Amino acid sequence: NEWRRHSYEKKRTLFTERASDFLESVFSSSDVSILSSEVKSRDFCQFYSNLEIKDKMVFLSMLARQYGLHQDIVLETAKNVIASEERGDAVILRVEERLRQSLVPQYQQLFRNVSRHEGGVKFLVDMRADILTNITSISNETDSAYLRSTSNSVRDLLTLWFTVGFLNLQRVTWESPCDMVQKVSDYEAVHPIRNWTDLKRRVGPYRRCFVFTHSSMPREPVVVLHTALTNEITKSIHSILQTGQFKPIRDGDLPEEDLSVNSETEDSSKITTAIFYSITSTQKGLQGIDLGNYLIKQVVRELQSEFPRIYQFSSLSPIPGFKEWLIMEINRNLHADDIGETVENPLLLDSEIEKLKSVSSSDCTNMYEALKRLLTTHEWVSKEHVCKILQSILLRLCARYLYVEKRRGYALNPVANFHLSNGAVLWRINWLSDMSMRGINQSCGMMVNYRYFLDNTTENSKRYLENHHIEASPEIVELGSLKI
Amino acid sequence: NEWRRHSYEKKRTLFTERASDFLESVFSSSDVSILSSEVKSRDFCQFYSNLEIKDKMVFLSMLARQYGLHQDIVLETAKNVIASEERGDAVILRVEERLRQSLVPQYQQLFRNVSRHEGGVKFLVDMRADILTNITSISNETDSAYLRSTSNSVRDLLTLWFTVGFLNLQRVTWESPCDMVQKVSDYEAVHPIRNWTDLKRRVGPYRRCFVFTHSSMPREPVVVLHTALTNEITKSIHSILQTGQFKPIRDGDLPEEDLSVNSETEDSSKITTAIFYSITSTQKGLQGIDLGNYLIKQVVRELQSEFPRIYQFSSLSPIPGFKEWLIMEINRNLHADDIGETVENPLLLDSEIEKLKSVSSSDCTNMYEALKRLLTTHEWVSKEHVCKILQSILLRLCARYLYVEKRRGYALNPVANFHLSNGAVLWRINWLSDMSMRGINQSCGMMVNYRYFLDNTTENSKRYLENHHIEASPEIVELGSLKI
Amino acid sequence: NEWRRHSYEKKRTLFTERASDFLESVFSSSDVSILSSEVKSRDFCQFYSNLEIKDKMVFLSMLARQYGLHQDIVLETAKNVIASEERGDAVILRVEERLRQSLVPQYQQLFRNVSRHEGGVKFLVDMRADILTNITSISNETDSAYLRSTSNSVRDLLTLWFTVGFLNLQRVTWESPCDMVQKVSDYEAVHPIRNWTDLKRRVGPYRRCFVFTHSSMPREPVVVLHTALTNEITKSIHSILQTGQFKPIRDGDLPEEDLSVNSETEDSSKITTAIFYSITSTQKGLQGIDLGNYLIKQVVRELQSEFPRIYQFSSLSPIPGFKEWLIMEINRNLHADDIGETVENPLLLDSEIEKLKSVSSSDCTNMYEALKRLLTTHEWVSKEHVCKILQSILLRLCARYLYVEKRRGYALNPVANFHLSNGAVLWRINWLSDMSMRGINQSCGMMVNYRYFLDNTTENSKRYLENHHIEASPEIVELGSLKI
Amino acid sequence: NEWRRHSYEKKRTLFTERASDFLESVFSSSDVSILSSEVKSRDFCQFYSNLEIKDKMVFLSMLARQYGLHQDIVLETAKNVIASEERGDAVILRVEERLRQSLVPQYQQLFRNVSRHEGGVKFLVDMRADILTNITSISNETDSAYLRSTSNSVRDLLTLWFTVGFLNLQRVTWESPCDMVQKVSDYEAVHPIRNWTDLKRRVGPYRRCFVFTHSSMPREPVVVLHTALTNEITKSIHSILQTGQFKPIRDGDLPEEDLSVNSETEDSSKITTAIFYSITSTQKGLQGIDLGNYLIKQVVRELQSEFPRIYQFSSLSPIPGFKEWLIMEINRNLHADDIGETVENPLLLDSEIEKLKSVSSSDCTNMYEALKRLLTTHEWVSKEHVCKILQSILLRLCARYLYVEKRRGYALNPVANFHLSNGAVLWRINWLSDMSMRGINQSCGMMVNYRYFLDNTTENSKRYLENHHIEASPEIVELGSLKI
Repeated sequence: NEWRRHSYEKKRTLFTERASDFLESVFSSSDVSILSSEVKSRDFCQFYSNLEIKDKMVFLSMLARQYGLHQDIVLETAKNVIASEERGDAVILRVEERLRQSLVPQYQQLFRNVSRHEGGVKFLVDMRADILTNITSISNETDSAYLRSTSNSVRDLLTLWFTVGFLNLQRVTWESPCDMVQKVSDYEAVHPIRNWTDLKRRVGPYRRCFVFTHSSMPREPVVVLHTALTNEITKSIHSILQTGQFKPIRDGDLPEEDLSVNSETEDSSKITTAIFYSITSTQKGLQGIDLGNYLIKQVVRELQSEFPRIYQFSSLSPIPGFKEWLIMEINRNLHADDIGETVENPLLLDSEIEKLKSVSSSDCTNMYEALKRLLTTHEWVSKEHVCKILQSILLRLCARYLYVEKRRGYALNPVANFHLSNGAVLWRINWLSDMSMRGINQSCGMMVNYRYFLDNTTENSKRYLENHHIEASPEIVELGSLKI
Repeated sequence: NEWRRHSYEKKRTLFTERASDFLESVFSSSDVSILSSEVKSRDFCQFYSNLEIKDKMVFLSMLARQYGLHQDIVLETAKNVIASEERGDAVILRVEERLRQSLVPQYQQLFRNVSRHEGGVKFLVDMRADILTNITSISNETDSAYLRSTSNSVRDLLTLWFTVGFLNLQRVTWESPCDMVQKVSDYEAVHPIRNWTDLKRRVGPYRRCFVFTHSSMPREPVVVLHTALTNEITKSIHSILQTGQFKPIRDGDLPEEDLSVNSETEDSSKITTAIFYSITSTQKGLQGIDLGNYLIKQVVRELQSEFPRIYQFSSLSPIPGFKEWLIMEINRNLHADDIGETVENPLLLDSEIEKLKSVSSSDCTNMYEALKRLLTTHEWVSKEHVCKILQSILLRLCARYLYVEKRRGYALNPVANFHLSNGAVLWRINWLSDMSMRGINQSCGMMVNYRYFLDNTTENSKRYLENHHIEASPEIVELGSLKI
Repeated sequence: NEWRRHSYEKKRTLFTERASDFLESVFSSSDVSILSSEVKSRDFCQFYSNLEIKDKMVFLSMLARQYGLHQDIVLETAKNVIASEERGDAVILRVEERLRQSLVPQYQQLFRNVSRHEGGVKFLVDMRADILTNITSISNETDSAYLRSTSNSVRDLLTLWFTVGFLNLQRVTWESPCDMVQKVSDYEAVHPIRNWTDLKRRVGPYRRCFVFTHSSMPREPVVVLHTALTNEITKSIHSILQTGQFKPIRDGDLPEEDLSVNSETEDSSKITTAIFYSITSTQKGLQGIDLGNYLIKQVVRELQSEFPRIYQFSSLSPIPGFKEWLIMEINRNLHADDIGETVENPLLLDSEIEKLKSVSSSDCTNMYEALKRLLTTHEWVSKEHVCKILQSILLRLCARYLYVEKRRGYALNPVANFHLSNGAVLWRINWLSDMSMRGINQSCGMMVNYRYFLDNTTENSKRYLENHHIEASPEIVELGSLKI
Repeated sequence: NEWRRHSYEKKRTLFTERASDFLESVFSSSDVSILSSEVKSRDFCQFYSNLEIKDKMVFLSMLARQYGLHQDIVLETAKNVIASEERGDAVILRVEERLRQSLVPQYQQLFRNVSRHEGGVKFLVDMRADILTNITSISNETDSAYLRSTSNSVRDLLTLWFTVGFLNLQRVTWESPCDMVQKVSDYEAVHPIRNWTDLKRRVGPYRRCFVFTHSSMPREPVVVLHTALTNEITKSIHSILQTGQFKPIRDGDLPEEDLSVNSETEDSSKITTAIFYSITSTQKGLQGIDLGNYLIKQVVRELQSEFPRIYQFSSLSPIPGFKEWLIMEINRNLHADDIGETVENPLLLDSEIEKLKSVSSSDCTNMYEALKRLLTTHEWVSKEHVCKILQSILLRLCARYLYVEKRRGYALNPVANFHLSNGAVLWRINWLSDMSMRGINQSCGMMVNYRYFLDNTTENSKRYLENHHIEASPEIVELGSLKI
């Protein structure tokens, strides 16, 4: 065992030496020639690609530590700037320029050289994805600070490269290249695609699937947006995906007429509404670079020019995290009861507690406990009268979750935060909207429409981002504000 | 007149107020919304585009002065960095990141937003071209410092966007879109295209015309490289352009066999040599962003894969500035004679002075004067014996100009500097090589081959850029080193 | 000389033998293999292509004589058919099928094999063009009968191949491949293109240039149609071509406003009218296969879908042959006068003769003579009062030429015949409409609008083709019917 | 029931009347206008398409009977031809031309007009497929003669349109449009595609899938050829399709190394052999128009230019009908035994009968009976020693089937006939080559290689088609010639 540890450490040391030597050769001389820099940056990619993930992290933090900034130059230049305060604008501009240059890490030039190769930009995207995935498991704080700073440096470059002008909007149809269609299928995370028939439908009539591709990453969809073309704001994902659901839907909850059934060709005169029912960013390495928003905006324009009669735009979005939050809140209330405290803002209204009594088993006296049981067992789904009683309670709690719960001033729910940042309105919460196992586990089968009123998105977005104001429909405002 | 001046000043003031108000509205709030920023950056482009060129400069320097850096924040953050020196890497990284952010001018975000629009990148390229063209006529030094800093800021963005990964190599042929072909014709600056027949030949058999286009500026060639495919290193541009020349060429100076004459289809088995005979950067706004080098490299690769037998690569380049330099040098020698001084390194060898005597008119006793007259009258061109005597003198002086004359350590001649930076070898100076009026005026009819030995370009480039070493053929070294 | 003739004849004999041998080898065995037939048909193309035009005719008539039908089989099968008259449908169908087979010339299989090669269809088109061009100079009647029959055999094949389904409608713009644009320029016969600026305008805004290409003859426009987009039915070709004309145009004859001047982008809201101002068939070998009609129809559909406000479609057509016809008629009238006869339907009205007197020189007493002189000297063009008097006379005579003069029941003028067959209406004759030398020589500067009323083209076409009825505007009917 | 029959007959009569009236309107006048003929032919397509299949046949035979030839004109013209026998070539050519015209059925012009529409050619292809599918069930002989003649008339047109010049060779890969890939999958008849992974492999590395498409039927593969790229002439389809087989394969029968396993990118240096393992004509309506042969030829050319080291071309083909033929032959031998006759050319050799005895159950004394049982029960597949004994017997019988058995002089087996017509050599019969249920049922698991020696295909094809000579490898010649 001792021997093993020893052998392992020796291997580590050897690797460290090899990596260090390699980096030295890469940054060797003040080599200004473009030609040698090309070879070196290629070597870098290859060296990195052949490493195991752990070694990649070691290698990158070594890179960041040793070939980041020249600390002494930064300090000296910073002092210069301070000293130049009174020496006139021309001088100040010059020293500030020098300070700016001194703050560019040495490795950034390497990354720029990498970007010149075929596949180089994709390499950087993937390298950043590596960092983001593994940084949380780095115990050494300094290492992790260096890695974060490397990741940010890459992000700054990618932000400039993944600007809208370099992205190509493409519609994916059944006549698109097979590999693109397959990738759209593979990447779909919101409502997984079940088979090729399902896929064919999602790119077929009454559907629009748009992607952004990037000129330096051809045949690779970067963001994917699925849209359904309908005649009203769709309540249920089942009518779009034409899936059977976990449980039959009762009168009054019937899915709206779906235009796409049995129709080979679109009747564009019937299309008044676009429902964004799935948006997926495929590259973890592009985290923090918002492309989805731009994709939605461009798709809106495309649809408007194709269908002059379209006047309603809305998402039909999942509510990931709702049930988790709910169970947590229930637990908090239960715990308070246990220790005899009163919760400041109890989860359930008195009237709701009364209603719950009628559907809970006799051995359960605490209605929080009863609710928790109902939700965790999925019992409610198959019992119509339970379902009916839960409907009003869960709709209210979901409104509270989406409309009231915040983090750092912004909506706690990430999907809500995305659409509200884009300027959408929190429009309607739909009951029995996604009755797949996934939907029931995530959000008790509910989904939500974020509606885009094109004239107000700018204003809404501004008010949300600046003042944390959430624009919502009156129904939601009322539901979300109900208190005891 | 007084009234006029008054009216003019009033107009200026009004413009200044209008511009100031406009900029205030653009940068008004800490407006984070993407949607409003889109509108604002569009407004910016429109406002700018409608200005006259003088107002454009006023407007841009106003922008740079008022919406550059927050000086106080820069200073404070710089102090923070200095104060953090001992507080550990994680802290240092954080404050340095903040300092970096503080050094990004406010207007840069505006420029980035501009780049997102269709035509936005082209707008920035053209705006920078405006600055570069007009900055020299700005008298106020502070203004010009601000404009330079704006130009650099745009350049930094463009450098990232005009990286090779986003450039598309395209071959232009007679089957290319007519507008592309026309632009290639319009942009040709080195050897102007005379008519459509001439143009058809330049994109036809035994010729390759390659361009870089940029994904955000479609149908716009950014750099253009014309190549002739031959069986030896071409001496004369006339054999490539199939132009008659100013004056018949004598035995021994006959142009090499030109493959392209009378041949409809290329015989690729005869092609051993690629001659780069014209390279043009079309966008002044991209000054300082070297794309020509990359274009040459990519074209070399294309040609190698198309013609496996190609083994020689060389330019056939003009020598702009040679005659101007020569006249200047003559004048310096003349002046020294006038005041009875001796020049340290006289232009003409004694033997050359003797030779010149045989062809100068009797009333002219100073051979510098005689040479000057010969060159300015173009007499030599049509007199065979004069021509013969000038040949050896001018070839030697040209070698000196190209091989010996430097500025800041680099070759004085800009074309030489370009090819030497790329790693080419100063190979051969050709007599009677471009006998067009343009060629005679510019460089006494001489042209030069810079030869690319692919195995050594990296090394050559490095030695030139780092040690100012010019790699040249033995002939040139000898010619250029001849002294009294 | 005798020797020369002898030598020539010997050469002829040698050629005949060589050609005969060659054909024997091609048709040698009952060779059913596709592979050998491929080689043979390639040989055939090469053999033919290398011949001089005279030999080509000798060769083709040899082919037609020797490898046409098996006369004996035709006769026998024909007798069989007659004999089978009463033997029931099944038998009759079978013998008729055999008769049909026996009537396919042997060389037709060869032609079909030729069509399989790349460039094979074009070969046949060109071969037929050879026949059509040279058949008139063949003195031997039998030879010419055989050649005509070969030409028809090729035409039958081409008719099947140049059916609309295999033709591709393409719009040619300034962004089309340069070689296509050049061919459109080279082929333009109606209004020759003067330079590349002229050409650029003809494919630019407010213009549409459409061509048919054929899948087996890529990059080769087969028919070309130029259309101008305007706001009224254009009277003068000068407003379309923006050409100065031979002579200034007076008040009341001013060209209509031309949308295309000074406008970079089309304002589609102003476009109400499409003027077909030039249609050219480029392949003589396709004579008798009407593609122009289909091209017009498809272009009408394209334009309707692009410009919903377009409601007027009209040609602006030349009147080739009018002046020639007019001079001939004048001569006929003169001749009748000479010999003292009366022409049945004299060319000039009495009132016209009176008018002419006022502008003819005193030495000329016969007004037919006077008119002839005026027209042949072009004097009238530059004399306003002569011009004014001629206007009404020539307009009336032109109406008579177009509306009344027929050949085999159809309009004598070929352009008229083309548009009337397509179902157009003879709409308006325009004075001072094409004042180029060409226009004056051809049709005294007049042009004509054939207007397409889409609802009636079928009916009009039918009435014209079946009953020789020419549909014309009331003005033309009146003008054309005026008699003494 | 009586009533029902009555009602049915009434309906028939009504339909007949309606169809008759419709046809009358279509052929109504001697309507020469193209425009009305367009409308009519569209009406025709629509009328036909809305009919049930039975009515389609009634309708088409009505069309053929009533709008075929003008019998009287044919007869008269035929007599004219006979009468003109001595009147010179020019006259003869003219009357023959008239006879040719008279033999064109009236409906052919209609079919040509149909072909002009978008989708018109596909309509004719499908209409002919209808006839070919249903003609066998037409009891009335005259009707069926008319239908056959209509089918032939369509075939003659299609033959001219589906000539190679109008067909486009396309390679289908995983990057091809999804609908094309799907069609390739749907049409695969020889080795059905199991799933999308299977499909992806068939268009992936070490595979080439080529199709012909036709310009008038875009996105519709007309013929599909699947090719595997290997390093030897493949024996077993399992190594190509990477399928497990019904039964493990023993030593000596191991599948050859398959290049495609575990290899993402092709190593073109290893590729020496192209195996055509599936060829499918997708359009029944093109029966009798051989496109497969041309597709193979073009693919050979493509492969030769892509892989200069390829020197072996061979099919790996199924043997449909072998087992059926074998059982039939066994029955014939059994029957002869039953009635005590001797078969002239008995199926089994004495030595084979001996061998069979060792593996047949004791209650079975007749070895023909025993063999029949073995084959029908599939027992042999799982019993190694039975399998070994059957191997030599079945290989010999298969050689006899392919090499000796003929119909009308040509190979009885249709796949053999196809490849031999193309000039291939009957090369090798492979044991345990397709052990899928389908393969075992069809050909006792055997497959055959037809090898293409490019230098001899022309000669081979000719000898086969003219002299019925089958070129085969010595092994096959020997096997196939073995007699008692």
